[in-house]
Amino acid sequence: MPAIFDPQSIAIIGASGNETKIGGRPIRYLRMAGYKGHVYPINPTRDEVQGLSAYASLSAVEGSVDLAIVAVPAAQVADAIQACADKGVKAAIIFSAGFSEVGDEGRALQDRIVSIARKGNVRLLGPNCMGAINTGNGAIATFSSGIVDRTPDRGRISLASQSGAIGAHCYVLANARNLGINKWVTAGNQCDLEVSDFLLHMASDPDTDVILCCIEGVNDGRKLTRALDVARANRKPVVVMKLGTSEAGAQAAQSHTASLGGSDAVFDAVLKQYGAYRAKTLDEMFDIAYACLQGGLPTNSSIGIVTVSGGGGIMMADAASELGLDVTPLEPAVQTALREIVPFAGTRNPVDVTAEIISRHELLYPMFELLAEKGGYGSVLTFLSHLGRNPAIIEALKPDLLRIAQVYGKDRALFLSLLYTDAVRADLEEMGFIVFEDPSRAVRAAAALTHFGRSFANQGAAIEPESHTLRAEARANLAPDRSYSEVEARDILAGIGLPFPAQSLATSAEEAAEYAAKIGFPVVMKIVSPDIPHKSEIGGVILDVRDGPATSQAFDTLLDRARAAAPNASLDGVAISPMLSGGTETILGVTCDPAFGPVVMFGLGGIFTEVFKDVSFRLAPFNRAVALSMIDETTGAAILCGARGQPRADIDALADALVTLSIFADQNRALLSSIDINPFKVFEAGKGAAGLDALIITSSGAGHSAPALHTDTPEKETAWRPAPKF
Amino acid sequence: MPAIFDPQSIAIIGASGNETKIGGRPIRYLRMAGYKGHVYPINPTRDEVQGLSAYASLSAVEGSVDLAIVAVPAAQVADAIQACADKGVKAAIIFSAGFSEVGDEGRALQDRIVSIARKGNVRLLGPNCMGAINTGNGAIATFSSGIVDRTPDRGRISLASQSGAIGAHCYVLANARNLGINKWVTAGNQCDLEVSDFLLHMASDPDTDVILCCIEGVNDGRKLTRALDVARANRKPVVVMKLGTSEAGAQAAQSHTASLGGSDAVFDAVLKQYGAYRAKTLDEMFDIAYACLQGGLPTNSSIGIVTVSGGGGIMMADAASELGLDVTPLEPAVQTALREIVPFAGTRNPVDVTAEIISRHELLYPMFELLAEKGGYGSVLTFLSHLGRNPAIIEALKPDLLRIAQVYGKDRALFLSLLYTDAVRADLEEMGFIVFEDPSRAVRAAAALTHFGRSFANQGAAIEPESHTLRAEARANLAPDRSYSEVEARDILAGIGLPFPAQSLATSAEEAAEYAAKIGFPVVMKIVSPDIPHKSEIGGVILDVRDGPATSQAFDTLLDRARAAAPNASLDGVAISPMLSGGTETILGVTCDPAFGPVVMFGLGGIFTEVFKDVSFRLAPFNRAVALSMIDETTGAAILCGARGQPRADIDALADALVTLSIFADQNRALLSSIDINPFKVFEAGKGAAGLDALIITSSGAGHSAPALHTDTPEKETAWRPAPKF
Repeated sequence: MPAIFDPQSIAIIGASGNETKIGGRPIRYLRMAGYKGHVYPINPTRDEVQGLSAYASLSAVEGSVDLAIVAVPAAQVADAIQACADKGVKAAIIFSAGFSEVGDEGRALQDRIVSIARKGNVRLLGPNCMGAINTGNGAIATFSSGIVDRTPDRGRISLASQSGAIGAHCYVLANARNLGINKWVTAGNQCDLEVSDFLLHMASDPDTDVILCCIEGVNDGRKLTRALDVARANRKPVVVMKLGTSEAGAQAAQSHTASLGGSDAVFDAVLKQYGAYRAKTLDEMFDIAYACLQGGLPTNSSIGIVTVSGGGGIMMADAASELGLDVTPLEPAVQTALREIVPFAGTRNPVDVTAEIISRHELLYPMFELLAEKGGYGSVLTFLSHLGRNPAIIEALKPDLLRIAQVYGKDRALFLSLLYTDAVRADLEEMGFIVFEDPSRAVRAAAALTHFGRSFANQGAAIEPESHTLRAEARANLAPDRSYSEVEARDILAGIGLPFPAQSLATSAEEAAEYAAKIGFPVVMKIVSPDIPHKSEIGGVILDVRDGPATSQAFDTLLDRARAAAPNASLDGVAISPMLSGGTETILGVTCDPAFGPVVMFGLGGIFTEVFKDVSFRLAPFNRAVALSMIDETTGAAILCGARGQPRADIDALADALVTLSIFADQNRALLSSIDINPFKVFEAGKGAAGLDALIITSSGAGHSAPALHTDTPEKETAWRPAPKF
Repeated sequence: MPAIFDPQSIAIIGASGNETKIGGRPIRYLRMAGYKGHVYPINPTRDEVQGLSAYASLSAVEGSVDLAIVAVPAAQVADAIQACADKGVKAAIIFSAGFSEVGDEGRALQDRIVSIARKGNVRLLGPNCMGAINTGNGAIATFSSGIVDRTPDRGRISLASQSGAIGAHCYVLANARNLGINKWVTAGNQCDLEVSDFLLHMASDPDTDVILCCIEGVNDGRKLTRALDVARANRKPVVVMKLGTSEAGAQAAQSHTASLGGSDAVFDAVLKQYGAYRAKTLDEMFDIAYACLQGGLPTNSSIGIVTVSGGGGIMMADAASELGLDVTPLEPAVQTALREIVPFAGTRNPVDVTAEIISRHELLYPMFELLAEKGGYGSVLTFLSHLGRNPAIIEALKPDLLRIAQVYGKDRALFLSLLYTDAVRADLEEMGFIVFEDPSRAVRAAAALTHFGRSFANQGAAIEPESHTLRAEARANLAPDRSYSEVEARDILAGIGLPFPAQSLATSAEEAAEYAAKIGFPVVMKIVSPDIPHKSEIGGVILDVRDGPATSQAFDTLLDRARAAAPNASLDGVAISPMLSGGTETILGVTCDPAFGPVVMFGLGGIFTEVFKDVSFRLAPFNRAVALSMIDETTGAAILCGARGQPRADIDALADALVTLSIFADQNRALLSSIDINPFKVFEAGKGAAGLDALIITSSGAGHSAPALHTDTPEKETAWRPAPKF
């Protein structure tokens, strides 16, 4: 990474004297930015390029070369990388297109380059990428056409983007919004270094305060989560924009890149679990980046609202509630005190200071003071409507606003929403306010800052110490490519402590009656056969069997049905278990996401899952707090908490089961393909829970272990193909 | 209304020589705007006010006065309005605060003013309002501090706001965004004229193309729906921002105004039903207003996307899908043709023209042409990323863009999203493009324009001719303040054609057995008593009774239970009806919204309604198309359409029932309080539906008939209290 962002010397292979060409632009940009290192244009046909001495080849350069920019046609790239390897170049940025993104031939070429680079210890960025920028030292290693007459402004936002075009759009947008960039990188085909590698770097970079990320998907989810973990530990907000969330978008993404990336719901859960914030629009991404830089992170999710207009207060309270912020009312005594200042003020929160402050600006401070001192709000948002465009009024208010910022800006995020002139905005920002014209955007930014504030205060999902014993025991001796029958799956899962009621396997009608009597009536009886995974479909389950004779009869019936439906099935017998009534049916599951590995799913049964998709996901393993949050996240959780007149369910038992399942999934990730515990009945509080059915499926084991850190991911493609002629 | 917006002469009662005072500002503004009518300052202590001759009283004015602005303390307002009545003034705008918004005394004062005005035929705006503006003739009848050195720019957007402060914020915001205002009004306490009156006026105003509306609620819903109907008929988009949607917001709204306004879900349904668009933020409201003015309304909901960046295309496709636009793929032949122009182009839709067009701008037109000619898209959105800030590139593209606008702008909404300079933006808008920096905002505007295009093409919810007979029959002879028992309610509803299975009322065990045999076993038996509305709670329902003796026994059991639970209840007997199995349980309901009158609700039973709030509403009466749309709107509709392996349900029968219920609700609106048909079972397609229980509750009838057009709504309040000293 130092070679990409902090090279002491840069060679441009395919350097052009034409400043508008792909091999000419970086030279122009490096000089424009005042890059202090050596710049070596490599061009066999010229002595001089843009006023610099040119070299016929990399080997002709006398000094060492940290970074090579490769801007030659695809067919010449392999030779260029070989030259880099021979010269001891640390990293190469390959602008050239025509690799994995254009099909098998390109992919083969790309594989060859990777192999040369590995042998020669050269790290690669690209191919088919737009390069990297470090505004701190002027290392502008890009050919982006977004640079016109000056290189990007310096700031404390760093950005890693898979797509070069989106990356370029972002730095131009950032600069247009007066936000500076620190480090910037686009990863293109990601044949070696990928977006997550750069996120990890930025997470520890002292010059980066906020990290932005635009991706379509990831191949190695653990690399991403590691980067997010480090960023969280270092209190650096990460804002992620994921492209390809809809079917139409994903279709376009497939033609744009061939990322695997897993399901969007899993990706969303991962970001939540690792404290990153997912922006839905570019505007939102930069709003949040701006707010993170401009203000402190709130320590709690309650928001105080001060407004010169009742309507504005309502609007912001609506937006805050929708985004999960608490618009906590002020105590009655505080409200009384507020009314002593302005008798007609709204005082509950929002506090409507009314247009009185236009003529009597001295009323603002004491009202703000009461709200801030007494309300305990993590953020305070003040709405001044159009007053920022009325010079006389805003000038009169400025001393009061400055005092507010000085006194209350230290341990609160202070937002101002008003229509402004550029000069007014600059003054207010100088005071320390986070300033937005649109009140709803201000609230949205407050919600994001609160997300980070809470996430940084609550680090990680590390499992509890008491779970470590479990961890050791949870590794099961699973065989590859198998579907474990209910009886086997129950045994395995009950063995690590998941609650499954006793079950006996009867091989005769007599045995059945005997076991049932031992278990206690009523019982449930199910056919057991490795060849009949879907028992209910053939009538292979009989519920509510109430006595001995009925048990024997049911045994025969089940065998008859099984033989009729699947004459060649091998039958193990009939499983007998107690008939449990009551409780709420939930579903616990595990899937293995191609990018992130084992993911635990929770949902309520039936239509909750099937029609409303009311399920939550978390990466395994996790602790109790995470389990509770994933229960809480579902709408159906209301039922477990006692909606519809039901007693409150045993959420503790449910959370324990999710934690145990997550540890099991983690410990068996090498072979695990999926687990279903459906239904998993949760009884009323104190009465536990019980799995009533279970299925474990394993895979061949290929691709499920953690990949090595330096991997080749040749399936990445991006369709942004720089026109060879620019 | 002409007196408010087109007065030939304006008197200012309480005129001030100080241009910054509430009675001084309108005079300054009128002169600044070049108002051509007579302006009469009324001030008993001065001969001259701001260079104009002043009059000691209204009666001293020799000519006639169309409009009076009242800017005197609350205590003097009644006299001022009396003077208006005596002078024959057509309308008065009351700026003064201190009326219903401050409590009972103020309310009484307000009532007195209304009564004087009615007798004297003076229409009132306010009190406690910020007045009105017509930029067309310079009638600037406001004291808003949003006017600094020029009055609002003229344009074709008109705005009606309940809150004065929000209204003022909006015109300042509009002007800051280079959007002009035509008519502008804030209704304050709405003691006479209210927001809906002005919406109706704007709906027919030839100078208004787009109507914006900010409200907290309405008292007379029919006035609002009439205005929306006229606007739709005149193809004028109405964008509504409703404040107070959240609990916190509504709490603030209650302290801000005392609007009734009904539930937010009903309000939302009304806007949908009447073709208005609900904006969630001010930014969105003005984005849509801008787009409506700048471009045509799409005739269908499919959107074509052209992009210079694969990632940008994905982003827009994601946003479009989320907002319900169809990102319809192009035919394979068209895709092949596109690849002939740029071999590496993404061609499915989004069409990724790639960075090739930077160096070869002539490629854009033929690619756009293929997409536009062959795709049949209602809107086309082109994403040019940061190219609008690169002068050389955008200048090269302009001729192609102009040709695109000229050829394809006539019958499509053409959006451009790019980072721009002001000059570039102006040029592109001049060509006819709807221009947005943020691609997601462009897509959101496209969705709103599509909403209007479709809404205007599909006018109204008028009931079908065949329903008119039903309408005549649907008026039931309901008594006030009654709860109709299941038997009565079923009879009434079955009488107008709603499907209820046969039911007989048995008064003895023998009768019960006899009736059950006639109906056919199995049967359901329920206790019938006007004093036991919730039968199930006392065990008053027995299901699945299978023969004669069981019927007689069940009869006795039900009577025993009823006597035990409610010894003094008068018992009518036991109702016997067939036990219907299968089908999907839904809920049909009617509530009487205080603002909008009878509203029909539809939802699936149980948790769908209770946990997910998965219900839809429509104002009664409505036609089949509306009924189908309200079914379709629920997530649970998937189950009726065959999710979870169920057969497709008889949606026709369900829609018929909703239409019939809506007509019944409408015809009986005077007394109706609520109807519940729960459950209403819908069987598989062709097998109809059946109500299994019903309840009708009537009210005293006060307040449910349609209010007269000119009503007093004294409960309106706004806390924006203009400081008396400005």
